[in-house]
This record gives sequence, C-alpha cells and structure tokens, in this order.
Amino acid sequence: MYWTKYFIPTLKETPQEAESVSHQLMLRAGLIRMLMAGVYSYLPLGLRVLNNIQTIIRQEMNAGGAHELLLPALQPVELWQKTGRDKTIADVMLRFTDRKGRNVCLGPTHEEVITDLVADHISSYKQMPLILYQIQTKFRDEMRPRFGLVRCCEFIMKDAYSFDADEAGLDSSYRVMHEAYMRIFKRLGLSCLAVEADSGVMGGNVSHEFMVPAACGEDLVFVCSGCKEPRPYKEGVDPVCPKCKGPLERVNTIEVGHIFKLGTKYTSMLNANYLNAKGQSLPIVMGCYGIGVSRLIATVIEQNHDDKGIIWPKEVAPFDIVISPLDVTNASVVAKAKELHDTFEDRGYKVLLDDRDERAGVKFKDAELIGIPAQIVIGRDFIANGTLEYKNRRTGGKTVDTPSAILALLKESIK
Amino acid sequence: MYWTKYFIPTLKETPQEAESVSHQLMLRAGLIRMLMAGVYSYLPLGLRVLNNIQTIIRQEMNAGGAHELLLPALQPVELWQKTGRDKTIADVMLRFTDRKGRNVCLGPTHEEVITDLVADHISSYKQMPLILYQIQTKFRDEMRPRFGLVRCCEFIMKDAYSFDADEAGLDSSYRVMHEAYMRIFKRLGLSCLAVEADSGVMGGNVSHEFMVPAACGEDLVFVCSGCKEPRPYKEGVDPVCPKCKGPLERVNTIEVGHIFKLGTKYTSMLNANYLNAKGQSLPIVMGCYGIGVSRLIATVIEQNHDDKGIIWPKEVAPFDIVISPLDVTNASVVAKAKELHDTFEDRGYKVLLDDRDERAGVKFKDAELIGIPAQIVIGRDFIANGTLEYKNRRTGGKTVDTPSAILALLKESIK
Repeated sequence: MYWTKYFIPTLKETPQEAESVSHQLMLRAGLIRMLMAGVYSYLPLGLRVLNNIQTIIRQEMNAGGAHELLLPALQPVELWQKTGRDKTIADVMLRFTDRKGRNVCLGPTHEEVITDLVADHISSYKQMPLILYQIQTKFRDEMRPRFGLVRCCEFIMKDAYSFDADEAGLDSSYRVMHEAYMRIFKRLGLSCLAVEADSGVMGGNVSHEFMVPAACGEDLVFVCSGCKEPRPYKEGVDPVCPKCKGPLERVNTIEVGHIFKLGTKYTSMLNANYLNAKGQSLPIVMGCYGIGVSRLIATVIEQNHDDKGIIWPKEVAPFDIVISPLDVTNASVVAKAKELHDTFEDRGYKVLLDDRDERAGVKFKDAELIGIPAQIVIGRDFIANGTLEYKNRRTGGKTVDTPSAILALLKESIK
Repeated sequence: MYWTKYFIPTLKETPQEAESVSHQLMLRAGLIRMLMAGVYSYLPLGLRVLNNIQTIIRQEMNAGGAHELLLPALQPVELWQKTGRDKTIADVMLRFTDRKGRNVCLGPTHEEVITDLVADHISSYKQMPLILYQIQTKFRDEMRPRFGLVRCCEFIMKDAYSFDADEAGLDSSYRVMHEAYMRIFKRLGLSCLAVEADSGVMGGNVSHEFMVPAACGEDLVFVCSGCKEPRPYKEGVDPVCPKCKGPLERVNTIEVGHIFKLGTKYTSMLNANYLNAKGQSLPIVMGCYGIGVSRLIATVIEQNHDDKGIIWPKEVAPFDIVISPLDVTNASVVAKAKELHDTFEDRGYKVLLDDRDERAGVKFKDAELIGIPAQIVIGRDFIANGTLEYKNRRTGGKTVDTPSAILALLKESIK
C-alpha cells in the first residue's frame, strides 16, 4: 500500500477531548474519528486493526468448537418482556416504535434472541453441546460515553452462547471458552486478569470477568502482591489475600470479557427444552460469553505504547512493515522502495510504503505514531553504499546492513 | 466440519410465509430465520454464504483502488438537516431521542457522514482520487418487508464513495466502479443488466442500476429482443428499441446495485472543499456506489436453483464438498469418510461430512437442498469394491470410480 494513495489522516496535535492515552493515540494515528459522543468511525488503519482482532477471536472460538452466526440488531421488545429484561436493562436500551406500530429495540445483548432461535431447533440431548457465537454491532444508551472506544453507544461485541444438557456439560463448555479467552488475550499482546465476578442482570451463579490493567481503567481489581492472584474488588474489605495473607493492591483495569454460567434462567422462561435419554423434557442449560471487540483496540494500545506512539503487537498490527524512502526525488531511492514493497508483499507481509514528499522527521514521527512493528529506512546510507536501516518499533533497536541481510533479519524477527 | 456438530436446521416442509423461491429455499436450507417481519438471523450456513459474497466484493473493490473503512449506524439527525435529507428520506428513517436528549437516527445511507468526515481531511487536489467503501448494516423503516432478504428493515450494504477534483476524475472513478461491479456480479454467478436510471433522492445527474432478472423481482426493465440491450422501464412507452427497432420485452428484476455521479451536491452543502493547483477553493466532486449485500444471497438463489434446492456457484458455496457415508454403523465406511474429510481439508477444500445416522434418502435430499457443488457418496459400491460416487450438483452428472480417480476429478471440476 502506498501512503499517498491511502487514507491515514494523522494529527500533530493531541485532540483536547481525548482524556486517555489510547484515545489520544487512536485519534492522532488516524485510526478513528468521532461522529458524535460515544459514536466513532473506523478509518482504514483502525479497521485493519479491528479485523486483525476479529480474526484472532474467530480462530480461537472456532478452535473451541464454536460456530459463527449473525443475529439482528433490531429486536421485538415483546421478546424481552418474556424474560422481564425490558425493565432490568431499560435504562441502556434504545427503543422506538416503527411505522407499522411495532415496539422495537436495538439489542444491547442477545440472550433472548438466541434462546428463542435455539428453542425451535434443539429437541434432543444428542444435539448438544452446541456453542454459537457472533461478532456484531451492539447499541447502548450510554449516559457518559468515555475514553474513545472504551465506553460507547455503538460498539462491536463477540457474544457466544453455549447449550448443554446438564451442569456437567455447561462446566465443560465454560472451561473451553475460558481457555479460548486466555489464548485470545495472549495473542492480542495483553496481560489479563481473570476474576470471579457478580452475574448482575445476566443472571446465573458463576461468572468471570477478564480485566486488563490500564491507567484509564474504571474497574478496580485486587491483586495480591504476594501470590499475584487477582480477586474481585470490594469496597471496605480488609485488604489481605485470603490465600497467602499478602497485602492486596488495588489495580485499575478495563473489562474486556465476561463469561457467565446462566443455567436455565433464559431457557426455562422461553421454553427452550430438550428430551434427555429417558425421554424427559428438561430446560437446556446455558452459558454466555462476551468480549468487547472494539474496546480491545483501545485496551491493546493502553498496554502497548510509549511516548512516541503505538507499539502494535505482531498479530494486531495494521501493517507488518513500513518502508520509508527519505528522499522521494531520488529515482534510485524510489525504485528501491517500490522493489522492496513488492518483494515483501510477495512474501506475504502487509507493507506500507511512505511515498510522501515529506521531511525525514515527519516520516519517522508518523511511523512511530502509527506503531508498525518494522521500519525500513532508505536514507543517505543507501545512496552512499547501498545499505538499508531496519528499526524495531518495540525495542528501538537499529540494524544497518545490505538489503538481503535485512530481508533475512525480518524473516526471523516478525514472522 | 461434521454435520452432527454443526447447526444446519433444514426443513422438510416449505414455510407458508415464504412467497418467493429464494425465500423458501433460504428457510428450508437453514440459511436464515425470521426474528420479526423484515428482520432475519443468519445461521452458520447463511453466514458462510454472506462472507463469501463479501470476500468477492472486497477483492474487487480493492482491485479498483478503493479503501475499506467502517462508519457508524447511529447518526446525528442534525447532520441530515444540513442537506435537507432528514425530510426527503423521512419516511424510511428510523429515529429516536436518546437519554442525553440527542436526536439520533439509524443511517439508511452514509453520504452525509462520509462527506463530513472527508471534509476535515481532504484539503488538496493531490489527495485525490480517493475511493472509500464500507460493508455495514443499514436500517430502513420498511412498510412492506418482502421476499426474505430482498426487502428488509435491517440489511447489509456495501457503499462506496469517490472523491475527485473534477468531472473528468469522477468519470474515471465511476468507470472503475462500474467495471468492478460487473466483475463482482459475474463471480457471483449472476447474469446482470446495467441500466441507466433515475437519481431520485440521492441527487446527481447520471446513475446506473444493476438489475438481476428474477421471477420475484419487483422492478421492471425493458430488454430488446433484438440487440439484447437493457433500457429503463417506463410505463406507457411505445415498446420499440430506439437502437435496432426490435420489440422490447418487460423483464422482472431485483436491483442489486446502484451507482451515482453525485457531483457537488453533498460537498457544497457540507463545505467539503479542496484547493486546486492554482490555489482556488472548489467543492470536491463525488460519486456513490451501492450494492445490496445481504439481498445478493436471495438473488444468487433466484438464478441458481432447481426443484430440489439451491445450486451454489463455486465461489459462493458455503462448502465445496459434502461427503455422504450412507451407513454410519459400518466402521470402514465411517473411517473412509473421515479420511476423505481430512484429505480434502488439507487440500484447501471446505468440507461438510454428513455423519448423521439418517436414511440415504434424507442425506441425498438435504445435500441437494443446501446446494453444495460436489457430493461424494460412500455407499454399497464402496463396501463391495471400494469405489466412490461423485455427484455434480449443477449438472446432475455422476461418476463412480476409485477414490484416487475421484480426487483427481474433483481437482479439475471444482478448483
């Protein structure tokens, strides 16, 4: 991809409205733009990151045996009345009446819809376990949207739902999802705490939250300074670890996932029953598993940046390599840049060629800001003696060598 | 993928509410389910088809030099008031007031949002041409939703927007998009008519609609029986081709795409200006280019089916091959089925193994219904002498031969 043909509107100044580091960097690096408070457009670079995150999530959900589908945003309020959640979720639910007089809401979550769907199609214990998931846009009437993609009115979630014949089945599905989550967050370059949590309006009796330590995080978690075990934060609790008696530290975190053993709460209210081996009709045992997908962009940046900009983890980066020819009026520099661009692309790398007629300083600053893992500089050394400079964005390390040596080095370091 | 672990709720009976062939087949083949009139869930098989269609669209848009981004569904009504379209599109626009008192709508289209975005970032003729597109969920307050995915309240669109310095630039972008559209529809297995059309509420002075002949199509197009040239349908027009004087036939079609030369309608109202080479400030010249993505699933089926079910075109099919072991109580049959499943998957095919303990008739009927291009039957011949049967869903042709010969045959016929 050539920079001049692409759309990366980077900003030199830090926008005033952005309070958190990730929000500032997302705006400055040209990843997102605000349409109105809590509602953002993903620009091409931001969408690439979002897609990379979605790919990782899909791979790990599929590896856990889950199947993807896609449920609607528009939902009949009638369905929510059956579980009573039209009232318990009322404050954040966006609703309206359409021209046909139907009471419609924009789904803030999908337990009702999926249970209603599955009720028509699961009739026997032989059809379970079944885990279905979607990556879909959700809506919340958020009073205080904050921190860019962290707390939004429109956001992308991965929500999965497991259906089992009994509690043992649910335990197994829950474990599989829990493990998938840990793999996902690791691949995203996140250090993540899995903490027992309250089930809230979801219902059920067991739940875990996945919390990422971050300066702007509004959720508190206790972490034992001794055994490092995370614990749910409770105000006014004597801050000593019940396991090792070490002192508990309060850590600010962002919630990136939440999983619930729902049991039969929804299936019994929506008549989602199955026949067991003895021919008895029983309610399906259910779990649900959420990940805040768009929020993850912000979270990854919170944990992966320096004062110069973003430092994308390998699998999340919008491009693997940025090539920076410093003098685009020099024909041999430009020719080399284009040749490297094509060579790297042929080898399966995603390559951004900064072909702008800008000063070296601007190119360096922007490359650091947008956080591409590897930078190849075609500068004075190339004109003098044919060598390239490779810069590792994360370590800051630099190597000057022949093009073929740099190519070999990249092969080892980024793929 | 093993059928028993997947989620393909096929139906034996044709659902009464479905009027069109494609709607009936989408429900019967377990591709979609209705949540409420005009609002559908995509089940796993349907989502696979949707993803395949999206992949083709992305590839051809990218080949045309367009860049993908993602704009919000929630939009401030205020922005629509600037172009006056809050009134001209009022009937289909879903609106509400949120808790903060904001007047919000669900975007039925995105000219205002993208023009507003680009206005902040294009300042010079050097930044153009620029074509941006998204594949995104749109909402319409549809009074008479019909034909399953053809006319919906919630649907997926690809919408692209071109930005050029002058009319010549727009002409070029328009041509590039027109050509991309023809490639897309061809790869989707569609015969498609490109017809000059009225610009309607979009504005501008040139537009083309892409119309797919289909029995349930509600849009009429004239096609000359002589020169085959399509022409816009007008009621009460003397039905003779102005070019070759041949008689014009009325053809029922579904609109799958619509492209517009918008000119400066939106950019002048939203102050999206650029500086030309002489330093003069001028409004950006714009085009917009839509494809009804989810509607394409229905359209492809309208043109690709027989009385037994769907016949997916190669690039759209949710799986390439369905393997049907007829006797799943026979260990050698099952072992062969699993071995073939793994072999085909290793070779890059998408494979569905019908491991259900069902009668041969059920397996044949379902394989035909869901329309997988190639079926491999492991039946009596396999037990007797080790041969497999390969069935081509489109031609109905059958070949009985050794496993290695069938493998070689598949290589030629489906990839």
